[in-house]
Amino acid sequence: MSRQRVVGVVLFHGFELLDVFGPLEMFGVLPEHFRLVTLGAAPGPVASAQGPLGVIERSLAEPGPVDVLLVPGGIGTRAAARDAELLEFVRRMQPRVEILASVCTGSGVLAASGVLDGRRATSNKLAFEWPRSVGPRVTWVPEARWVVDGNVVTSGGVAAGMDMALAIIARLLGEAVAEAAALETEYEWHRDAGWDPFARSAGLVQD
Amino acid sequence: MSRQRVVGVVLFHGFELLDVFGPLEMFGVLPEHFRLVTLGAAPGPVASAQGPLGVIERSLAEPGPVDVLLVPGGIGTRAAARDAELLEFVRRMQPRVEILASVCTGSGVLAASGVLDGRRATSNKLAFEWPRSVGPRVTWVPEARWVVDGNVVTSGGVAAGMDMALAIIARLLGEAVAEAAALETEYEWHRDAGWDPFARSAGLVQD
Repeated sequence: MSRQRVVGVVLFHGFELLDVFGPLEMFGVLPEHFRLVTLGAAPGPVASAQGPLGVIERSLAEPGPVDVLLVPGGIGTRAAARDAELLEFVRRMQPRVEILASVCTGSGVLAASGVLDGRRATSNKLAFEWPRSVGPRVTWVPEARWVVDGNVVTSGGVAAGMDMALAIIARLLGEAVAEAAALETEYEWHRDAGWDPFARSAGLVQD
Repeated sequence: MSRQRVVGVVLFHGFELLDVFGPLEMFGVLPEHFRLVTLGAAPGPVASAQGPLGVIERSLAEPGPVDVLLVPGGIGTRAAARDAELLEFVRRMQPRVEILASVCTGSGVLAASGVLDGRRATSNKLAFEWPRSVGPRVTWVPEARWVVDGNVVTSGGVAAGMDMALAIIARLLGEAVAEAAALETEYEWHRDAGWDPFARSAGLVQD
């Protein structure tokens, strides 16, 4: 029997709702395998980019055990990428966690921390210039639903986080477990990391 | 210029994360058209089925203006369907709102309130028996991503709520606005209400 892993997600002011709760849904329907915890500057409520509040359970200073660490995107990433405590947290955790993942412009926060230097990564397709400007030593991949480089996994924008979460579940526990999560949530899982019509519609790739 | 509509979502103990935050993401990326508000028994935090907390902003007794009312699913629907205050709220709001929508087993709550009597509706495909048992006077449609009957719209399980939200946006504001929300969230929108591979995999329809 596999142990229960802890999925920690970082919340900050202006986080994107679906970047957080899409992946947490996929991990969360597998309670025999995953337990969820929300992390941030200090315990308490924090406003999403869309308005509704999330609630931080544990501080970055005392996160407890974390196996999979997730950094979301959202308009708040611009301030998050200048938050010294958060960047230090990401740097400290990357070699300790099994998987460090970001959704959307969350890769800009990872880039600002330095953990993407020398790695391949992707980001939101309509806001691709910002992470690129933050991470000049990153090999940015415009056309990808998600990109794996060692224990660091970055996804495209917003909904791409759900496909990435299922790919992480498949990597950790096998395809059948990921498929069960997709069926339970009635989600049409895109299993191909190279599937990305949004890079084209955003003008990042041409024929 | 169209007015800004208010999307109200009901939170209760054991709500399903993606049922709530999937649709709220789609409405929420269109702030010129929609404002979001969370409603429930009393203002304050409330635990989702997966653990992470949501926060209720306004009580059911004083919800303020609501144009689109959304009832999510989740394991908490079984208790919610016996909550007299919530059922009375749903009955009172249905003729007043522009759209009353449910995701997943949220249709069981609508059924328990009586607003689905004589209407067509759908629900989660792996838990279809429960809403059926609660709503014997409802015409349940097993194979449907979502079902529209007058101003009441019900969707299949979990991820189906995002497709339904985009269909509601298209109905209220036109296809182009819904398409813009899908592009911004990098979500592959299923535009066909009859698209439902999950009914088949759940054994609800046979060849």
